[in-house]
Amino acid sequence: MTFTAFLGALDAEIRERADWGDVASYIPELARIDPAQFGIAVALADGTMLTAGDAEQRFSIQSISKVFALACVLGRIGEQIWTRVGREPSGARFDSILLLEREHGRPRNPFINAGAIVTTDEMLAGRTPKDALSEIVGFLRTAAEDDDIHIDKAVAKSEAETGFRNVALANYLMSFGNLRNPPEMTLGTYFHQCAIEMTCVQLARAGRMIASLPDAPRILSAQKIRRLNALMMLCGHYDGSGDFAFRVGLPGKSGVGGGLLMIAPGVASVAIWSPGLNVYGNSKMGTYAAERLVQEMGWSVFG
Amino acid sequence: MTFTAFLGALDAEIRERADWGDVASYIPELARIDPAQFGIAVALADGTMLTAGDAEQRFSIQSISKVFALACVLGRIGEQIWTRVGREPSGARFDSILLLEREHGRPRNPFINAGAIVTTDEMLAGRTPKDALSEIVGFLRTAAEDDDIHIDKAVAKSEAETGFRNVALANYLMSFGNLRNPPEMTLGTYFHQCAIEMTCVQLARAGRMIASLPDAPRILSAQKIRRLNALMMLCGHYDGSGDFAFRVGLPGKSGVGGGLLMIAPGVASVAIWSPGLNVYGNSKMGTYAAERLVQEMGWSVFG
Amino acid sequence: MTFTAFLGALDAEIRERADWGDVASYIPELARIDPAQFGIAVALADGTMLTAGDAEQRFSIQSISKVFALACVLGRIGEQIWTRVGREPSGARFDSILLLEREHGRPRNPFINAGAIVTTDEMLAGRTPKDALSEIVGFLRTAAEDDDIHIDKAVAKSEAETGFRNVALANYLMSFGNLRNPPEMTLGTYFHQCAIEMTCVQLARAGRMIASLPDAPRILSAQKIRRLNALMMLCGHYDGSGDFAFRVGLPGKSGVGGGLLMIAPGVASVAIWSPGLNVYGNSKMGTYAAERLVQEMGWSVFG
Amino acid sequence: MTFTAFLGALDAEIRERADWGDVASYIPELARIDPAQFGIAVALADGTMLTAGDAEQRFSIQSISKVFALACVLGRIGEQIWTRVGREPSGARFDSILLLEREHGRPRNPFINAGAIVTTDEMLAGRTPKDALSEIVGFLRTAAEDDDIHIDKAVAKSEAETGFRNVALANYLMSFGNLRNPPEMTLGTYFHQCAIEMTCVQLARAGRMIASLPDAPRILSAQKIRRLNALMMLCGHYDGSGDFAFRVGLPGKSGVGGGLLMIAPGVASVAIWSPGLNVYGNSKMGTYAAERLVQEMGWSVFG
Repeated sequence: MTFTAFLGALDAEIRERADWGDVASYIPELARIDPAQFGIAVALADGTMLTAGDAEQRFSIQSISKVFALACVLGRIGEQIWTRVGREPSGARFDSILLLEREHGRPRNPFINAGAIVTTDEMLAGRTPKDALSEIVGFLRTAAEDDDIHIDKAVAKSEAETGFRNVALANYLMSFGNLRNPPEMTLGTYFHQCAIEMTCVQLARAGRMIASLPDAPRILSAQKIRRLNALMMLCGHYDGSGDFAFRVGLPGKSGVGGGLLMIAPGVASVAIWSPGLNVYGNSKMGTYAAERLVQEMGWSVFG
Repeated sequence: MTFTAFLGALDAEIRERADWGDVASYIPELARIDPAQFGIAVALADGTMLTAGDAEQRFSIQSISKVFALACVLGRIGEQIWTRVGREPSGARFDSILLLEREHGRPRNPFINAGAIVTTDEMLAGRTPKDALSEIVGFLRTAAEDDDIHIDKAVAKSEAETGFRNVALANYLMSFGNLRNPPEMTLGTYFHQCAIEMTCVQLARAGRMIASLPDAPRILSAQKIRRLNALMMLCGHYDGSGDFAFRVGLPGKSGVGGGLLMIAPGVASVAIWSPGLNVYGNSKMGTYAAERLVQEMGWSVFG
Repeated sequence: MTFTAFLGALDAEIRERADWGDVASYIPELARIDPAQFGIAVALADGTMLTAGDAEQRFSIQSISKVFALACVLGRIGEQIWTRVGREPSGARFDSILLLEREHGRPRNPFINAGAIVTTDEMLAGRTPKDALSEIVGFLRTAAEDDDIHIDKAVAKSEAETGFRNVALANYLMSFGNLRNPPEMTLGTYFHQCAIEMTCVQLARAGRMIASLPDAPRILSAQKIRRLNALMMLCGHYDGSGDFAFRVGLPGKSGVGGGLLMIAPGVASVAIWSPGLNVYGNSKMGTYAAERLVQEMGWSVFG
Repeated sequence: MTFTAFLGALDAEIRERADWGDVASYIPELARIDPAQFGIAVALADGTMLTAGDAEQRFSIQSISKVFALACVLGRIGEQIWTRVGREPSGARFDSILLLEREHGRPRNPFINAGAIVTTDEMLAGRTPKDALSEIVGFLRTAAEDDDIHIDKAVAKSEAETGFRNVALANYLMSFGNLRNPPEMTLGTYFHQCAIEMTCVQLARAGRMIASLPDAPRILSAQKIRRLNALMMLCGHYDGSGDFAFRVGLPGKSGVGGGLLMIAPGVASVAIWSPGLNVYGNSKMGTYAAERLVQEMGWSVFG
């Protein structure tokens, strides 16, 4: 079976299933989306792009934006960010505030919400929210070599109106002196960053630089790329990261909008989207498809 | 510079340093060891073994035994073990009891002490402590193709006399019904398993099967080996696992005796020993040497 | 020595001391106050009022307002409030958010900040912030039989600008559905309630109803008064409540402005003020004076 | 209605009820007891003893022994014990090990299991388990003026065989250096202390000294007695202490055997027994009877 045939069969198999999971309910704008959708795009080292399903459908990348925001910050200020945020798995839910109290306002890693808010706050150093958002959208456009990437303002507004737990996290960080801008400014920027819309094809293209594919734009050093991948492997799926590594074996980052970016270093950049979520808040069919794909192709970094 | 020359230079460089870290103090028999020692052995896919420093010196493998005990259990009972222990990073110290209370006696993963005690308990199902220990020592001898691997009973006795926190963990597990044997029987077995002595050369040879090197004995399926590696990557260095992945980028498992087993899947099995520890309880010079070696060779799984 | 002479001697002794503690620093408006001040007022069952020191000096009652806000709510809606907040000591700091995550947004008791925010939110049911504040100020005026009790708007504003941790708590409560009004509305009301200014004499008079003194206005049932006292005894001094009960033996409630209301049921209502704080955030000299007074008079409820 | 008639009516009312709660299941010897039993004894200041129900039935006093062990230790070594154990409510279950990890082996108070094990360990300073047990049994006999008080060795043995969580606590304390004797020695003594058997009449008589009744033997200073009462009020019912203070309003201490000692300072010493427990592990009918009795007599310390 060719790769394309495999993707088509996978898409067909998933569409037969009834257990898509539920969409995230805490962002009203996302709660309306039909969970029974599925798309996949695979960018290969030879420059080809294979797709199946709704691979050209735009979706809200949400937490996947954390990877690219961190990439921006690493590119600009470098390793200094680690004075404000750690790089260990948290062993807790993505929106947990508990460890933040115990560890005096220093988030465990940049991929849980508290850590991502710190990253966005760092992006705001010396610039306006508009400029910071231009930077990250520009970064994605450069990485994807596609200018048709935008922020869905209705989603940003929806999250701003109901994201009470993120407001709590930002103010808690501020109380420990680990925000440099007013909480509402950092949060406003953060909600817009999460509301970036992309298709699977665009996301797979943007991921090529993290996979170090030959045709990807050179933006970050090889060392920084390795480190991004390490963070995705250890912390990319919140308290389901161990399970993902165990079952799939590649670095990845999920978003509550149902997106999943997965990197096979040197081999492929994969974007999957299916909005129904599992108990960890990761895409249910996305995780399944990732497991099937990696098994089929033997792409696990673990042999 | 040849690989051998690199290892020699690394050994020479480390011997010049003064910051070896401190040896573990809570096991009296280990507290007496001179921290200023260093050895390294690298088993390559072509069957060669390169060494430097004290690579033939025996040391107490301690927690590295957890990897092989888990391998035994996976080989015998398979995935059933996951009903008793999780596979997520704990975000806490190796001997933490805190999460155990909150998660009702189910340890987060098999590489923190609580989880390893459950693994040993599983090994005891239907056999005596002597038989269980024969099984794991036998497993190591088979994997290393070397029969000169033994338990240091003085170390086992020393730990049994002072390992109060492990006694607490075992009894706590028992109170939740997650031990099947009397705590003192499981613990006695566990302390002996941790007291296995090996040299870097022996350990690198035993690790070949986890690296899927061509000359390694075939013991576990490819899938089980990938999963062992995933667990080592995410949980192999306790609450320093994220840092190790970030800086080194290979699956590894440390022991409080200063040993470190590191796997480059398909490429190499590396054993390093230096008894001085860093703040996480991992070998300080061992971690440094691992980082240097992987950088030099470009072995990171993250590209 | 007469009671008046004792209070005078206590005042004189304290004024000789150099260890007043530090004023609260997180509310800028309070951080400017000189810690070396002390006042005490004791309302007795026979209707007399004894004073010493700065007993007529106004100060910010801060968390002492939580007792009267709860009294209002108990008077109006009764025991229903306990569906939203518990009545157990928290074993944690006054502004801890940790237990709130673990216990799904239900604060342990109405005297830690999270619980007090819920009480204020309950006061807002069906009325404006202005009306709710009129109710609590009116309650205090009635209880003290003194209309000269007001809110210090500069303090309320100061806390609103820097009370990030309280903003976090309110939004966290909201995320669990345990606020009924917008977080900024409830918090605005809460900050104003905490900024009520009173003198020791006014506060001791207001406390008479909680001490069930004969000349106090009858506002609450005897059972509700007993329950208020029980809550003050168990939770009135945050994670220093056990120490206060152990050393003093009376129900009390402290405020971060340095105030302390203490109740000897049937015997006396005592208000003390000294703005320097101890490690728990309670008035240092206030706690000392309370201990000395109760010892001298034999007022401990514990015999 | 006379006091005696009230107690009789209360006994009759309770015997009609069907919701006795369940007996403790984790100590096999206690798990066999019929929950549908009830006895009460009230020692009054005038020297009379009123009883109802099974007031002469022996039961295992369990955690109530912690009060008398602490009284022994306070009498002998005094306030020094507070270097090893705190006096704040824990906000957690009686057998929680969680706070012990976070607070480095110093239990929150002497009435949770960890703290009581430290108290017993202190009693063992310089003496054998047999001598320490003689001291506490002797203390109870003196306090009750009754020599017919003994240890039920079958219960002690039963708990020793199944008390895994207490074994965990003791070893955990030891790992922090907060036990001075081997864990098994301190625990053996602790299990025997908890297995003391008394009747309600004996327990009410023993409690007279804590209530400072005129006919009680003088053993402790007035200050120490006040402090014992304060600790019982704040920590006597584990994470149900706030609820007990709120509903009943007197210092008390419960035991998992269904016993309850309650003190009305200067007025009465009350012992109640009913082996069915509520969710906190306190006697269900015992708590109910305490609430009814205190309401009827107006004995709350809170007015």
